[in-house]
Amino acid sequence: VPQITFSPRIRKSPFYEATVRDGVTDFTVYNKMLMPTSFGDLRSEYDRLLGGVAMWDVSVERQIQLLGPDAAKLAQYLSSRDLTNMVIGQGKYVAMCDHDGRILNDPILLKLAEDRFWFSIADSDMLLWCRAVASERGFEVHVSEPDVSPLAVQGPLAEDLLADLFGDLARQLKYFWFEETHLGDIPVVLCRSGWSKQGGFELFLQDGSYGDELYEKIKTVGQKYNIGPGAPNHVERVESGLLSWGGDTTPDSNPFEAGMARFVDTDTRVDYIGKDALQKIASAGPRRLLTGLLFDANAPSEWPLPERMPVTKDGTPVGTTSAIVHSHRLNRTIGMAQLERSIVEAGSAVELAGPDGVQRATPHPLPFL
Amino acid sequence: VPQITFSPRIRKSPFYEATVRDGVTDFTVYNKMLMPTSFGDLRSEYDRLLGGVAMWDVSVERQIQLLGPDAAKLAQYLSSRDLTNMVIGQGKYVAMCDHDGRILNDPILLKLAEDRFWFSIADSDMLLWCRAVASERGFEVHVSEPDVSPLAVQGPLAEDLLADLFGDLARQLKYFWFEETHLGDIPVVLCRSGWSKQGGFELFLQDGSYGDELYEKIKTVGQKYNIGPGAPNHVERVESGLLSWGGDTTPDSNPFEAGMARFVDTDTRVDYIGKDALQKIASAGPRRLLTGLLFDANAPSEWPLPERMPVTKDGTPVGTTSAIVHSHRLNRTIGMAQLERSIVEAGSAVELAGPDGVQRATPHPLPFL
Repeated sequence: VPQITFSPRIRKSPFYEATVRDGVTDFTVYNKMLMPTSFGDLRSEYDRLLGGVAMWDVSVERQIQLLGPDAAKLAQYLSSRDLTNMVIGQGKYVAMCDHDGRILNDPILLKLAEDRFWFSIADSDMLLWCRAVASERGFEVHVSEPDVSPLAVQGPLAEDLLADLFGDLARQLKYFWFEETHLGDIPVVLCRSGWSKQGGFELFLQDGSYGDELYEKIKTVGQKYNIGPGAPNHVERVESGLLSWGGDTTPDSNPFEAGMARFVDTDTRVDYIGKDALQKIASAGPRRLLTGLLFDANAPSEWPLPERMPVTKDGTPVGTTSAIVHSHRLNRTIGMAQLERSIVEAGSAVELAGPDGVQRATPHPLPFL
Repeated sequence: VPQITFSPRIRKSPFYEATVRDGVTDFTVYNKMLMPTSFGDLRSEYDRLLGGVAMWDVSVERQIQLLGPDAAKLAQYLSSRDLTNMVIGQGKYVAMCDHDGRILNDPILLKLAEDRFWFSIADSDMLLWCRAVASERGFEVHVSEPDVSPLAVQGPLAEDLLADLFGDLARQLKYFWFEETHLGDIPVVLCRSGWSKQGGFELFLQDGSYGDELYEKIKTVGQKYNIGPGAPNHVERVESGLLSWGGDTTPDSNPFEAGMARFVDTDTRVDYIGKDALQKIASAGPRRLLTGLLFDANAPSEWPLPERMPVTKDGTPVGTTSAIVHSHRLNRTIGMAQLERSIVEAGSAVELAGPDGVQRATPHPLPFL
């Protein structure tokens, strides 16, 4: 198995040392930063996420901060969603698109103040995009990547754990709402969010020098909940149909093809980048759709395919997969794919030529569970 | 040693299968693509680069293509260098800066036609930057990442090898000049360039489906030159003082601090992004400079430090290192660092607190060799 080369070009998280102590075994690179992907026992990590509580270093979710008099104007211009009624303390899932309606990123947008916003981004250099637009438009706003590093606490016991640390605040927060607060001296934004559907929070650490202290504090209090380390879980995310931008999307995907139709406002008076293009796509209907794939029951239970695979219908190419996993809860092989809309809408059976021979699958609505 | 997680989010090169056959052992991620960094014997790879010929998969150097009537105008507006006299077939090393003069990338710009340019980029999503600027300015130009994948052939025997394949063209090309040509059916741009100072070429493959064929063709013809696989060599690049954007630079670095002063034209009539800011920095003088560091002769011969290290002068912080290696040719420990200008200009001795105790070093001009 190839090793990963360390480099000053690839950043380390403020929680890096803590994850090494906890036995991290695998990394990926995301936003030019190392991200743990496993601690050596993916099945236990899955079970912990489903039945208990897990802690994930997701500081690779970098924040792009917009600060200044035109921050709200810029946030809106960059987001294909009507933000008119957004209030302080609220997060919203938005698509950021280019002028042709291609999706560039799918962040959570956090409104921290009337003149201060964060895009909590997926794996692309949105700092470049946001700065170029702000500067070329002459907006009065400072665009930066602040010292902010999210740590996720996920699973059904996450709320109990965080109530031990933050009291009623943890219980009262609604989904995607947040509050700027402290844990002792440690400045954090506590948000009910996270890249799983098992419930939980993200703590946006606002000072990386506290990384180790925050990690250990949660670990200590988490002992009574049997907390353990983990990472965004590939099997759970497919079961839950969570979008991996750049994985499930291709460079020419638009948000309608990425399963984000309900987060795109085309019938609105606000203006944003790509609106004309998105209106046209909405009216014609997207060419492709993101869909689940349910494999025949006799499909191999472990098809570890970390690559895109071509999908055919009677031999004709109709799209590609982005994930194939064995669902522990369904006891079935399932996947995610970007397929031609007609195939998805008709629920037509398709074929995949894998290393173990041709497998059959049918489109399945997302999420599976 | 941690493993690297494969993912459809991280692309594979058209030469990936060939490098696996050749025994690649280590990867990094660069422009969201896997890049080989070693085939298991770095010293042999160094010796081959210095005395023979090596082949490197550097397809992570993605191309950003500007195509259309405003391509030249956009190329100029994005480059802090006067391109007035640039002709077709010529490459130029340019800094791309933001509106505050921060360096965003240090590509080779290739002029393929009056209306067609490629930026051969380092590790940042310049497609986003270029598209944002082009669209917001209303330029008539199509900005894309075409199917182009560079393969480097480096070392003193590279010219002989490529003359076997391309005839006189390989001998006649001047440094950074190129020509669009074919190798049999395989469409390539042959350019005298590469991220070493040992001479050589980059073949910009223009159709990824030929990846395996191109790799094997060069390998076969290269047998008589004892060609072998390799990767941009960390020791040689420090000896040669080659800039690693994002490694040697920090997000706030400007090109004067990155050793690119001679490629920045501030006294020119052409307009480009960041010109005002760069003029101010040029006139005041940069705050920091990229410099070599020559360690005392008794410094540990192997200081494998793939992280930035703080540098002090009499205990006061004066900058950080980005590389420390043992130079095989100098038989000395050397490094690269971004230090306060006064320290570099005075050649003052500095200290670094490493795992083996405090080491002393002095600034040294780049390149070392």
